[in-house]
Amino acid sequence: MHKYIISIDLGGTNTRITLTDLSLRIKARTSFPTRNFSSSRKILISEIIKEVFRLLKDNSIKKTQILGLGIGVPGPVDFLKGKIYYLPNIKGWQNTPIRDILEKRLHFKVFVDNDVNLMTLAEARLGAAKDRKNAVCLTLGTGVGGGLILDGELFRGTSFCAGEIGHMPINISGPRCNCGGSACLERYVGNKYILAEAKKKLKMRNINLEKLSEMAESGNKIARNIYNNFASNIGVALAGVVNLLNPEVIVVGGGLSFAGDFIFTKIKETINKRAIPIQAGLVKVKKAMLGKDAGLIGAALLVKESKLKTNV
Amino acid sequence: MHKYIISIDLGGTNTRITLTDLSLRIKARTSFPTRNFSSSRKILISEIIKEVFRLLKDNSIKKTQILGLGIGVPGPVDFLKGKIYYLPNIKGWQNTPIRDILEKRLHFKVFVDNDVNLMTLAEARLGAAKDRKNAVCLTLGTGVGGGLILDGELFRGTSFCAGEIGHMPINISGPRCNCGGSACLERYVGNKYILAEAKKKLKMRNINLEKLSEMAESGNKIARNIYNNFASNIGVALAGVVNLLNPEVIVVGGGLSFAGDFIFTKIKETINKRAIPIQAGLVKVKKAMLGKDAGLIGAALLVKESKLKTNV
Repeated sequence: MHKYIISIDLGGTNTRITLTDLSLRIKARTSFPTRNFSSSRKILISEIIKEVFRLLKDNSIKKTQILGLGIGVPGPVDFLKGKIYYLPNIKGWQNTPIRDILEKRLHFKVFVDNDVNLMTLAEARLGAAKDRKNAVCLTLGTGVGGGLILDGELFRGTSFCAGEIGHMPINISGPRCNCGGSACLERYVGNKYILAEAKKKLKMRNINLEKLSEMAESGNKIARNIYNNFASNIGVALAGVVNLLNPEVIVVGGGLSFAGDFIFTKIKETINKRAIPIQAGLVKVKKAMLGKDAGLIGAALLVKESKLKTNV
Repeated sequence: MHKYIISIDLGGTNTRITLTDLSLRIKARTSFPTRNFSSSRKILISEIIKEVFRLLKDNSIKKTQILGLGIGVPGPVDFLKGKIYYLPNIKGWQNTPIRDILEKRLHFKVFVDNDVNLMTLAEARLGAAKDRKNAVCLTLGTGVGGGLILDGELFRGTSFCAGEIGHMPINISGPRCNCGGSACLERYVGNKYILAEAKKKLKMRNINLEKLSEMAESGNKIARNIYNNFASNIGVALAGVVNLLNPEVIVVGGGLSFAGDFIFTKIKETINKRAIPIQAGLVKVKKAMLGKDAGLIGAALLVKESKLKTNV
């Protein structure tokens, strides 16, 4: 009877919705610019629900054929209660019981998690960390996120906020971070800090990440140096993670991971230099495999695995 | 039939052996200075076996009454194979299959783990982290060790070397550490580094930790400042651990944790300042409760819990 899963990736820029079968093959998809509907929480939720119903109708699928809906959101989530603590980049979502709201309107099972956790789950089941028991995921972008697979399962921590590699301090003292802390990894390797450094050191006003990585690839020493520092700072934080968690693999995804393979080499080099030999020798650093759909695949996996567990 | 457990704490200074009942009440104990027998691995193992047999004989206990033996060692252990990787402070123990060696000579079940893991297990079952699902233990001393309880169980990592909080970098660059890395927490808060700083700043040649903490307690500003820096550096590393693992409680033990409650206040203050509010607000920082016997209690728990699992 249950033949399909609905996945939603609620992003700061776009909200994407897919319909997959139980083997996670994508049957249909739709999306809309989040900002067009983000003036209030109510409007955004209505748009999501409207699009879900449209997706079902357009594909002649009945509600009873839906196993469940998984939604990933860009902020911390109380996984047990299905409640969003807050969304740093979308206003008005503090303490939103998104699971209950959606279940009431849709009448099928809803599961909510942080978007980086879902990307981590996807990479662990079908991507770069497939069949690995202990894996760490790191996503590079405006924010620097992380997720943990420990003993084969997503590790969420006591209030479901574990995995914040981007907010591990890499210096005793340093610049203030948006999170309230200081000298956090994100404060050194987040997109805007890299670009600010590039503007200053290259004396260019209009530089973007594509241009910067082109310059690095084609041998510009200053650009290359910016990337080397960037990768080395990531390596310092990851050396701490490697010594603490002794993972088999670290999966790195997000914009800057596409700047070139030398970044991965430099990250691994730094881990080898800074982490204890047993732990450093074991761990592999890999590029994320599933790209932009990772979060949607993870949302579908969340539904599928939750269902498997409740059937036991 | 099985009524007793033997626990061994193989330490750099003393090797201690206890006989407990299955409720972990200590029935008898013995010990010897490790250095008197550490000229070779063979001599040390023979002494351990001799003392175990003597303990059984003195208490009129038969081998068949022993549920098993747990041994904690000061270094990394391959828990699955029961093999010591190496002991940083006792020569000649590389790749010692200690479980097999002891089982062959003693004819009862043997379990081996790292001493900090066993202390962590003891604090999680009977001490400061009792009934907590996610707990982090930190031990302060010559070395700075750590152990993790995640989802209620000891988390050992892929090659069983997880938990090395002492070797998380707290600066992008900094002094070389014994582990091969640099700017590790231990390099700032290990006993000898604290004493070196105290000697320099207080201009005293013969200072020890007891004297230093007396001076801090009685209001000496320089001594107090040394401890404040010490606690704040621990707080920086723990802020990273709190953001990464979202634990309920952090248990701090070992020599310097006895310097005064202001150290715990300062550690928590630093975590509050540096970690994300949700994670920081939740976590408690507590003093270890079980003292020097923690490792022995943990060794007994390891035997007891392993037995419970194999009986399922």
